[in-house]
Amino acid sequence: MLFKVEMDVNVPLDYDKERFEALKATEKAYSQDLQRSGKWRHIWRTVGQYSNISIFDVESNAELHDILTGLPLYPFMDIRVTALCRHPSSVRDDDS
Amino acid sequence: MLFKVEMDVNVPLDYDKERFEALKATEKAYSQDLQRSGKWRHIWRTVGQYSNISIFDVESNAELHDILTGLPLYPFMDIRVTALCRHPSSVRDDDS
Amino acid sequence: MLFKVEMDVNVPLDYDKERFEALKATEKAYSQDLQRSGKWRHIWRTVGQYSNISIFDVESNAELHDILTGLPLYPFMDIRVTALCRHPSSVRDDDS
Amino acid sequence: MLFKVEMDVNVPLDYDKERFEALKATEKAYSQDLQRSGKWRHIWRTVGQYSNISIFDVESNAELHDILTGLPLYPFMDIRVTALCRHPSSVRDDDS
Amino acid sequence: MLFKVEMDVNVPLDYDKERFEALKATEKAYSQDLQRSGKWRHIWRTVGQYSNISIFDVESNAELHDILTGLPLYPFMDIRVTALCRHPSSVRDDDS
Amino acid sequence: MLFKVEMDVNVPLDYDKERFEALKATEKAYSQDLQRSGKWRHIWRTVGQYSNISIFDVESNAELHDILTGLPLYPFMDIRVTALCRHPSSVRDDDS
Amino acid sequence: MLFKVEMDVNVPLDYDKERFEALKATEKAYSQDLQRSGKWRHIWRTVGQYSNISIFDVESNAELHDILTGLPLYPFMDIRVTALCRHPSSVRDDDS
Amino acid sequence: MLFKVEMDVNVPLDYDKERFEALKATEKAYSQDLQRSGKWRHIWRTVGQYSNISIFDVESNAELHDILTGLPLYPFMDIRVTALCRHPSSVRDDDS
Amino acid sequence: MLFKVEMDVNVPLDYDKERFEALKATEKAYSQDLQRSGKWRHIWRTVGQYSNISIFDVESNAELHDILTGLPLYPFMDIRVTALCRHPSSVRDDDS
Amino acid sequence: MLFKVEMDVNVPLDYDKERFEALKATEKAYSQDLQRSGKWRHIWRTVGQYSNISIFDVESNAELHDILTGLPLYPFMDIRVTALCRHPSSVRDDDS
Repeated sequence: MLFKVEMDVNVPLDYDKERFEALKATEKAYSQDLQRSGKWRHIWRTVGQYSNISIFDVESNAELHDILTGLPLYPFMDIRVTALCRHPSSVRDDDS
Repeated sequence: MLFKVEMDVNVPLDYDKERFEALKATEKAYSQDLQRSGKWRHIWRTVGQYSNISIFDVESNAELHDILTGLPLYPFMDIRVTALCRHPSSVRDDDS
Repeated sequence: MLFKVEMDVNVPLDYDKERFEALKATEKAYSQDLQRSGKWRHIWRTVGQYSNISIFDVESNAELHDILTGLPLYPFMDIRVTALCRHPSSVRDDDS
Repeated sequence: MLFKVEMDVNVPLDYDKERFEALKATEKAYSQDLQRSGKWRHIWRTVGQYSNISIFDVESNAELHDILTGLPLYPFMDIRVTALCRHPSSVRDDDS
Repeated sequence: MLFKVEMDVNVPLDYDKERFEALKATEKAYSQDLQRSGKWRHIWRTVGQYSNISIFDVESNAELHDILTGLPLYPFMDIRVTALCRHPSSVRDDDS
Repeated sequence: MLFKVEMDVNVPLDYDKERFEALKATEKAYSQDLQRSGKWRHIWRTVGQYSNISIFDVESNAELHDILTGLPLYPFMDIRVTALCRHPSSVRDDDS
Repeated sequence: MLFKVEMDVNVPLDYDKERFEALKATEKAYSQDLQRSGKWRHIWRTVGQYSNISIFDVESNAELHDILTGLPLYPFMDIRVTALCRHPSSVRDDDS
Repeated sequence: MLFKVEMDVNVPLDYDKERFEALKATEKAYSQDLQRSGKWRHIWRTVGQYSNISIFDVESNAELHDILTGLPLYPFMDIRVTALCRHPSSVRDDDS
Repeated sequence: MLFKVEMDVNVPLDYDKERFEALKATEKAYSQDLQRSGKWRHIWRTVGQYSNISIFDVESNAELHDILTGLPLYPFMDIRVTALCRHPSSVRDDDS
Repeated sequence: MLFKVEMDVNVPLDYDKERFEALKATEKAYSQDLQRSGKWRHIWRTVGQYSNISIFDVESNAELHDILTGLPLYPFMDIRVTALCRHPSSVRDDDS
């Protein structure tokens, strides 16, 4: 089941740089594990923003909630979730 | 070069149904040609809306403009375009 | 899987009253069938509005999309969909 | 008398974690007491957010105000209140 | 139980003037009956707008919904409802 | 001359509690004096919010400005002012 | 007593041109009478818009309401009213 | 050349009072010099707000920018600029 | 003196196509004359929209207003005007 | 390939002035290098704001992202990116 998730990351100007870099490294590993498992289907950067747009493929709403609130950068994020489904014009078998 | 495009379709209540069905058929063919060519990478339906979210992979801004304004349903649409690029955490070779 | 759905109904001032009453009767039957089946868990009226807030319990995003776009009054509606999940403080077994 | 209440919880990045966990425990007990009494009919988590959507069944506006401002996490919350009433299509006896 | 209700009236430019004047007369009688009964406590005009702000004193949400949707001008209105309660600093016995 | 004034009070999480309670006591006295003088006609609490909606009856815009900026809690407030006048359907002699 | 009033004029594309020109002529005379009487202190055009920003000097809210709703183009207008008062830094005797 | 400028002043709750009073005194002198020179044509207070609405008469956009960014309270301000021109109905020679 | 102007063109679905094409041809000639004269410095298309972003270089606000309201497609347009001036980091002699 | 980029700079009131001046100097050099290279085609100041509107001419979305996130003042900025293309009415060879 597919969801579009948009995440904006807001880092306070005076946040400790080293601490944030450590969080970012954990975030990257966390994201890549989920990408390799197929749960986190796509992730793109929005040009000019510290934001991404992602496509998730999960078993349930609850699973998506657990994934998102488990993000190491979650406390820095604004998140928007949109439920998706197969488009009748789609030609790709895996876009549903 | 990737772009997220969100399209909302607004059909007046009293629009001629047959005429609109004909336009929809043309729209589907137009979309599927572009999907097969690789220009229109993904298309998903937003749940509960007459809207889609799509990912385009084009050579230039101008090419995207021509594709979008050429949509048979373009006069019925509200469109939002967002420029994307590769996310540093992405593990997919083709998400850039 | 639970979703909150908010529906606003907009009827043009000059829409044929009889035709609209017929649609409303079909809508009521459609809604009550889904309520009895357990798919449409709750429906409440928003005070002072021609709007409802509903809770749906469906198998998938696709099922919700089919239910909503099948509403007899769908062409008159603005719809907002929000994915829900169990709240860790909930004491009700069936609110998940 | 029914109300939809939406609550967003905003925790400052540097808020003391232990102190907040203590508040959350109190909040949970407070909420569950009200759920068991029937005042707080439903509570769901909004996917991806530190937010809930709840249905309250109270005697009066004043009672709802007292319940909400008594929430241990109230100082951290943005709250939106919407008055509800029975929907004419509802088949559930207790959704009014 | 008190509610603030804000009503904006939108009349299409080409709406039949006589028909609208007739509706306005009915609206006025309807409103004044409710004012005399004490249900519709206050009504003020917003300067420069075809809008009012009103205070209602009703037994329940359902009663307010019935009053508002029974307004002869209801199909022309945008309505915003806000639940009120007694303010701890109020000195007026009847503002609760 | 009547005005609707809506006031939202925003207290920083770490503001000194005693100092704020002292300000609130001064605010209450200030408000009640103005209520007794007839300048501050009504004050209601918005359910679930640290906000009020009030009706002022003043000689001039300048008098209203002086009253509002003199509020002990003014530095904590967001304020919205709307000019009102008598509604042609009003039956109350004193709602103008 | 001073008010800033902003007026946007919206003319439907298919509105009868001659009829509108006649209304505009009446509007101009109406406005100029009020300007000469000192009630309508200033009127400026917003660049690129069919809108004006005006300053009114009236005895009361009610007088302003009567002036605005009496505008020949009132049914075509969106209007925003803001109450003003003398600024403590003003050096002009007549800006209050 | 005329511009409407709206300025909102936001003072942090814990900002040093004496320092701010000193800035305000400088601001007042700065504003009054420009008013006397005819550049700052009008300044009014918005009722209930720490905001003003002003009319500037300048030689060029650049001159307006220099005046505004030179305001002693500029770092505390939100500013909105709107280009104005003579209204065809204006009867005042100096409102252009 | 420079201004950014953003124009959105809204064409009703049922507007006569030939009549609109004729207006577009006049609009193009009007725009190109102004471009050649140096008044309309730049015009770009916004991707996916029937909108442009333009830079104008005019003598005064009044001249800009006359140019914009003289656009053959003006009755179909939403227009946003922003006053610009030279940026202190600019290296182009003609961007001021 | 052209993009409009709007940048707002937000400096906290208590940010170290010297440190910020140093950043501004670096920003200016960074911007002027890109202007001379032709990547940063235009930069204008928005009147009354610490904001600019710029036109970039880049090879790809990715290049634009790298330029923007490399801005020395990037952590202080809100940025809005809009993809542009040649307007069919443009007479300038280099506005595409």
